[in-house]
Amino acid sequence: MIVVMKPEAMSREITSVIARIETDGYKAHLSEGEQHTIIGVVGESPTPLREENYSSMEGVEKVVRITAPYKLASRHFHPADSVVPLNGSQMGGSKILMIAGPCSVESREQIIEIACELKEAGATALRGGAFKPRTSPYSFQGHGEKGLQWLAEARERTGLPIVTEVMDTTQVEMVCNYADVLQIGARNMQNFSLLNKVGESQHTILLKRGMSSTVEDLLMSAEYVLSHGNNRVMLCERGIRTFEKATRNTFDVNAIPVLKALTHLPVIADPSHGTGYWEYVEAIGRAAVAAGADGLIVEVHQCPEQAYSDGRQSLKPERFRAMVQQIGRIAEAVGRTA
Amino acid sequence: MIVVMKPEAMSREITSVIARIETDGYKAHLSEGEQHTIIGVVGESPTPLREENYSSMEGVEKVVRITAPYKLASRHFHPADSVVPLNGSQMGGSKILMIAGPCSVESREQIIEIACELKEAGATALRGGAFKPRTSPYSFQGHGEKGLQWLAEARERTGLPIVTEVMDTTQVEMVCNYADVLQIGARNMQNFSLLNKVGESQHTILLKRGMSSTVEDLLMSAEYVLSHGNNRVMLCERGIRTFEKATRNTFDVNAIPVLKALTHLPVIADPSHGTGYWEYVEAIGRAAVAAGADGLIVEVHQCPEQAYSDGRQSLKPERFRAMVQQIGRIAEAVGRTA
Amino acid sequence: MIVVMKPEAMSREITSVIARIETDGYKAHLSEGEQHTIIGVVGESPTPLREENYSSMEGVEKVVRITAPYKLASRHFHPADSVVPLNGSQMGGSKILMIAGPCSVESREQIIEIACELKEAGATALRGGAFKPRTSPYSFQGHGEKGLQWLAEARERTGLPIVTEVMDTTQVEMVCNYADVLQIGARNMQNFSLLNKVGESQHTILLKRGMSSTVEDLLMSAEYVLSHGNNRVMLCERGIRTFEKATRNTFDVNAIPVLKALTHLPVIADPSHGTGYWEYVEAIGRAAVAAGADGLIVEVHQCPEQAYSDGRQSLKPERFRAMVQQIGRIAEAVGRTA
Amino acid sequence: MIVVMKPEAMSREITSVIARIETDGYKAHLSEGEQHTIIGVVGESPTPLREENYSSMEGVEKVVRITAPYKLASRHFHPADSVVPLNGSQMGGSKILMIAGPCSVESREQIIEIACELKEAGATALRGGAFKPRTSPYSFQGHGEKGLQWLAEARERTGLPIVTEVMDTTQVEMVCNYADVLQIGARNMQNFSLLNKVGESQHTILLKRGMSSTVEDLLMSAEYVLSHGNNRVMLCERGIRTFEKATRNTFDVNAIPVLKALTHLPVIADPSHGTGYWEYVEAIGRAAVAAGADGLIVEVHQCPEQAYSDGRQSLKPERFRAMVQQIGRIAEAVGRTA
Repeated sequence: MIVVMKPEAMSREITSVIARIETDGYKAHLSEGEQHTIIGVVGESPTPLREENYSSMEGVEKVVRITAPYKLASRHFHPADSVVPLNGSQMGGSKILMIAGPCSVESREQIIEIACELKEAGATALRGGAFKPRTSPYSFQGHGEKGLQWLAEARERTGLPIVTEVMDTTQVEMVCNYADVLQIGARNMQNFSLLNKVGESQHTILLKRGMSSTVEDLLMSAEYVLSHGNNRVMLCERGIRTFEKATRNTFDVNAIPVLKALTHLPVIADPSHGTGYWEYVEAIGRAAVAAGADGLIVEVHQCPEQAYSDGRQSLKPERFRAMVQQIGRIAEAVGRTA
Repeated sequence: MIVVMKPEAMSREITSVIARIETDGYKAHLSEGEQHTIIGVVGESPTPLREENYSSMEGVEKVVRITAPYKLASRHFHPADSVVPLNGSQMGGSKILMIAGPCSVESREQIIEIACELKEAGATALRGGAFKPRTSPYSFQGHGEKGLQWLAEARERTGLPIVTEVMDTTQVEMVCNYADVLQIGARNMQNFSLLNKVGESQHTILLKRGMSSTVEDLLMSAEYVLSHGNNRVMLCERGIRTFEKATRNTFDVNAIPVLKALTHLPVIADPSHGTGYWEYVEAIGRAAVAAGADGLIVEVHQCPEQAYSDGRQSLKPERFRAMVQQIGRIAEAVGRTA
Repeated sequence: MIVVMKPEAMSREITSVIARIETDGYKAHLSEGEQHTIIGVVGESPTPLREENYSSMEGVEKVVRITAPYKLASRHFHPADSVVPLNGSQMGGSKILMIAGPCSVESREQIIEIACELKEAGATALRGGAFKPRTSPYSFQGHGEKGLQWLAEARERTGLPIVTEVMDTTQVEMVCNYADVLQIGARNMQNFSLLNKVGESQHTILLKRGMSSTVEDLLMSAEYVLSHGNNRVMLCERGIRTFEKATRNTFDVNAIPVLKALTHLPVIADPSHGTGYWEYVEAIGRAAVAAGADGLIVEVHQCPEQAYSDGRQSLKPERFRAMVQQIGRIAEAVGRTA
Repeated sequence: MIVVMKPEAMSREITSVIARIETDGYKAHLSEGEQHTIIGVVGESPTPLREENYSSMEGVEKVVRITAPYKLASRHFHPADSVVPLNGSQMGGSKILMIAGPCSVESREQIIEIACELKEAGATALRGGAFKPRTSPYSFQGHGEKGLQWLAEARERTGLPIVTEVMDTTQVEMVCNYADVLQIGARNMQNFSLLNKVGESQHTILLKRGMSSTVEDLLMSAEYVLSHGNNRVMLCERGIRTFEKATRNTFDVNAIPVLKALTHLPVIADPSHGTGYWEYVEAIGRAAVAAGADGLIVEVHQCPEQAYSDGRQSLKPERFRAMVQQIGRIAEAVGRTA
């Protein structure tokens, strides 16, 4: 950490900063420039450094953090790629994995039928929401535990592992009973109570980036899960909120190579939410894999115009089948398989 | 709702849209332009209209919603201002109310001492966090129930009602036992499980806008609470996330008159989070009241450089006292009192 | 400037950075932390420091700038408020000045009539566009020199000085012949050729913030004008582009106290573009003055529904008259006059 | 266009809207819903419809535009892909074209040397700035005409056509004398005077998206050029400004398939500005081509740590060579060549 003093800082203000650094158990290293005195904080101490406390001291212009605020998630701490087992393959390995399914579990028949189609088309896992976070209290909120049971039945039929969202700490135990992967949705990325709870569960986690969260925020949320000794975490880029309205969200493809550089965790992409229109899903799925994503999560529905939610961004099964082929060719072009 | 067909839409596609409108129990009203056929959906029906289902039909270019998606929160539904009782006054009445206090409850002494100072300076209610949503799992997470007890003790001493955050459904009952107002933080604005739970509690709610939430999203979240018959909801503008980095957030002052036009609920402003720097808190507090805010929520700490959190944006008590004076003069200038 | 080396940086990489610092004429000041070596760049030299050159050296993690990149615009360089003479008053003095008028000059009669009404209502200067930057090539592009002549005629009648936009270097001379203040529009804030030209002109400049420009970008653009010895520059906050669509732009009220802290130049606000709806213009005008703005620029039209441009955000003259009263009361509340 | 009346609109307000529609030469088509009366504007007329005029009429809630505001740029108007000749190939054809070169032309030797290396590595055209738009007036502003002469010399040696920026209307003629393609930079995307001038020039144009411009804004700027009968326009996605700071800009990969759907013009991508870090340029270049881009423009410098500008995002020639190979494999995977 570096403390930059104001040009007009008085020497007693500088002395106070140094005293505080020493009280916190660190060493102060002074550097006097023409305009600014700069104080480096070096050494180690059990007391964590609170930037804000220094930045609110008198005479301080700003405080610059040097080290990343996350540790367990960082590639510096764990240089090799982590992989997460999924259906006999590994998310984060050389194979590009495809998670697919409808936005919502709508009925027993629907989810079993689509699971069979997806299995045949080459999907690695089945997604489907039983608990649905909906902007409106008047929209369909999911079938709850009944939906989870139907998902489990679809798994029995197809062997596809289940990825499904958990919205609240009180649901974690129940969802763990049915699901292979717990999804934390974008709106809950900073629901820290929930992150702690799913961390404790030791279940595999798919953590979606919040729509206004930075890459660093996402890694800090992963750190919550990892801090419970739960290392089976996949990160998911799903688009951020910007001024552009031609698409539902702006898919931040940059985040893929950035995350691969900063963290050892697998990175997947959701081109369905990332665009909001099925017409663009294939193109963005290809782009994500070309940029280095380890897998995709894609919304597929037999009849999008009858879907209870997200029909506009859902592929029909035959388009998904074609997409799997395309992704296979891109995977090869970047030295991977699909 | 209006369905705009593509210029190249075929007549069987138009027929399908009309059929669906009728199946949903509405009437279709056709309007043929030079390029586009436009289909108005009129009438009433118990089946809610799902825009997405229409927008994913073949031949449809886009669907335009006409009515607001919220009802109970809308001024159209409830034209007169709603007021929320607070400490003998009314949030949303002619008096500008000031909620103040530290970011975190740090100790019994701290919260009692600051409560006394704030009471004397003119505060209407005391804020302070016992459960703290922190980006990092390694940061201070709050004193939990002990913090709530200290808050209750501060209330006994001063008479100031308590505003404090609840982060999770499992905490709601406990927090209700101590707090006068439950705060839903920005990161939980779309934690729908929590919104339902606090709606059921019938406790007074302070709902903060999420940092990437639109005004409409905020009103939809309020609708969750209102849909449980809980009308004591205050909305709070606290800054949104933009590209500008000179301040912690961009305080969206426009949201104040916009909300006052769209909803009957009281609107308050948080200039502390809205700027992130104590130097700007007074100016933005004045601006919010000048724009029509019904109250402010402000972070105040005896010694910001020792604060466990948010020290950089906390006023010292003497600055808060001066701010109360300034707000009083602005309140008068807009025909209100403070 | 501070150069932060990567944890794995080799000593020859550190040596290279030091050598470059010395070649550039500065001194390197080393600080070795547990993880990172940090190199402070101190001293003065005629060679300007190029951050990017250091950040692209091997072994470098990042480069942190300490001093602001602008000089003439900074309050550190010029601590006292600068004022810009306008119609016998001073923008940046204790009086809040009101610039008002239609978006476009539409006809001789229109501009003369509105000028008389505005004069009587208390306006300090008349705005009106003769050259109009329009998103569409098919929209009205302004009356050009004829519009400038009508503006000059309106000035003769009323004594109100003229504020009008210049869009291109080739227009500068002509516009200087008629206008008292040259406006640089938001879309031209980083048209550096134009900034140089208007800087050379020594005319008074009203520089609008670009819709995706940071406060620092705005100050750098002001620096272009100031670097020609032209100190008569007013800055204008007019809203930035964000995800929020309830208003045309998001008026960044934070920018007002931030600018007042960073620069000595007068700061004005445009609540018309800042909101896009006449219903919100008064509220945001009041907020801007409460936050410390030195003046306002407001769109007023006799008959907004007949306006050639921006009718949706134009006040009628009687509303403007009421607004002047409101601003007067806010001005008094913050110790100024109007 | 559709005019949505307020629920409380009076019948004389509806009559006024209808009267105005008829005065403008169109027909009004009424549709009365439970809450809102909706008025469709149908037919054709020489008078262009001004949405704002209707939206500012009394009783009007909002106006919804149905048709795109651009015409010549739209795929509806010109369904087949347009191609732009470049160095014997065609931008927009099946081959992916690579434009490469340094940010700035720094010296005669530099530009000739890099041109030879790029030619050999497989570049299709040479980029390099002679006029540089720089945020700071104190930064290197480019060598001007001398730089253009050096570029022309590099073309003579290598046969590579020249792509270079023009910043101001007064430079257009001179730049046309040397360059094959005139680049309009992001900061000038809405410099309408310049767009008109380069439109008149009939030279090939590379139009970069502004950092806060929507896809629609970009197409409207293209429309300016096209409206002069100049059809040789390439569009370039180069990243937009968002809250994310891990990269210089957020590369909007969604814009690529969106533009390919909306317009017939070729679409290229700039992964150098799109990320700001050379480490991510290859990944984002691959992503852009996988998403459907017709070509790339990439910054390459022999010695990035000595570059006058943008060193941090410049590839070394050997990395560029490797990138060309990668792009070739992605091109094949999407059924194209490189």
